[in-house]
Amino acid sequence: MLKRYKLIVEYDGTHYAGWQYQDHVETIQKILEEALYKFSQQSIRLHVAGRTDAGVHALGQVAHFDLDTSTRLMEASQIAKAINAYLHDHPISVLSCQQVDEHFHARFSAIQKHYCYQILNRISPPALQRHYVWHIRQTLQEDAMKEAGQFLLGHHDFSAFRAKECQARSPFKTLDRIAWSREGAIIKIHFFGKSFLHHQVRNMVGTLVEVGLGKRHPTDIPVILASKMREQAGVTAPPQGLTLVNIDYENQIVDKTPCC
Amino acid sequence: MLKRYKLIVEYDGTHYAGWQYQDHVETIQKILEEALYKFSQQSIRLHVAGRTDAGVHALGQVAHFDLDTSTRLMEASQIAKAINAYLHDHPISVLSCQQVDEHFHARFSAIQKHYCYQILNRISPPALQRHYVWHIRQTLQEDAMKEAGQFLLGHHDFSAFRAKECQARSPFKTLDRIAWSREGAIIKIHFFGKSFLHHQVRNMVGTLVEVGLGKRHPTDIPVILASKMREQAGVTAPPQGLTLVNIDYENQIVDKTPCC
Repeated sequence: MLKRYKLIVEYDGTHYAGWQYQDHVETIQKILEEALYKFSQQSIRLHVAGRTDAGVHALGQVAHFDLDTSTRLMEASQIAKAINAYLHDHPISVLSCQQVDEHFHARFSAIQKHYCYQILNRISPPALQRHYVWHIRQTLQEDAMKEAGQFLLGHHDFSAFRAKECQARSPFKTLDRIAWSREGAIIKIHFFGKSFLHHQVRNMVGTLVEVGLGKRHPTDIPVILASKMREQAGVTAPPQGLTLVNIDYENQIVDKTPCC
Repeated sequence: MLKRYKLIVEYDGTHYAGWQYQDHVETIQKILEEALYKFSQQSIRLHVAGRTDAGVHALGQVAHFDLDTSTRLMEASQIAKAINAYLHDHPISVLSCQQVDEHFHARFSAIQKHYCYQILNRISPPALQRHYVWHIRQTLQEDAMKEAGQFLLGHHDFSAFRAKECQARSPFKTLDRIAWSREGAIIKIHFFGKSFLHHQVRNMVGTLVEVGLGKRHPTDIPVILASKMREQAGVTAPPQGLTLVNIDYENQIVDKTPCC
């Protein structure tokens, strides 16, 4: 009998070629599927909520999979422990495993995703945070960046912020909310929306930083959006500043026992 | 003419054999002194505030040095930039360089040091924070730990919390304050005092964790202190959870221009 499970996964993306399976390189999906195989002896395919790029991190990535439980009965919480036991050498950690409804889909059932982008804004290079921030030496005008961010909110054709390789059928997305916070010299920009185009967050951040440096004006944003041309927007912010923080779903949990 | 400079340094201690110079291994002091030599062509000895152990980190380590400025005049802020230029491959970063009074001493002029110890308290292993936390799976009773911490405050003979190799002349120290904070599953314990014995913070944390696990009672702390015997206290908490956050000094800055 096939049962569906939802995993919440934390990982440090620094030394991986991103989430998605690729031959000959280490990816998060490959390592997790190998761990799933080792404990279950079944070839299990993971379906992920957000395919993160090389160098991008996750505090709360979500993936689902189907497991044939006819030969071996296992509590969801024990599955999490079993996977983690095979991930020992990797900075990848299953935070929870819960049995879900057969209609649950990590990607399509998501109602909101939360990404955070971290910028270290000081002269000195990063030491402790070097794999988790974009280092900008010149002082950023945060007020101008916040003003620019307001123009990105809502439902738009985000073609100007879309990577060439993006496979989404439509360039229309809705950006629900942007929130700003600070921790010492680190500026954190939080983006909330149901889904994002490939590189959309990093391209928005690259453009906001150009506003913060005074190279662009906040009111350039609507012009960039209207152009629908990638070359009108700013650079793609580097991957290491980006973290997938959390994904919200409708309540589809079958087994409500928290396991971690 | 010799001028004295104060450096504030951030570093990730993960891959270093601690602060202090040693032959044949990489230490923070060795790498910084090499960088100082490269830019000044002078053999400069650094005097540090707190010699951190292998794996221990710093957000605000302080060191001072004397530089012969007769042949070459240099702004303090340019010294910071010059050192950082030679630290490129290392997760070590000079946050500021300021000229100080000839009586300033990084270690002896310090009036308060702030250390932070991070514990990740959840079942799942750490991924993003693996080099910066002590992972404890069992739920810690924080209230009991806080109660135990109260008994450590003040002026005591801390022999029970002192490493065998400790070179301090006296085992008496004053612990001014302990503060607690939380970030998700991470418990942060902040220790404030003028100075600490070797391993004192890590030995206090190891003992507090044993209280949090129910293996000891908060009122065991005064008994442990009174015993003055290292074997009466708890284990030494692992180094990677510890960070030297900040050091306060009397106002001895000569050049007040902030440089970073």
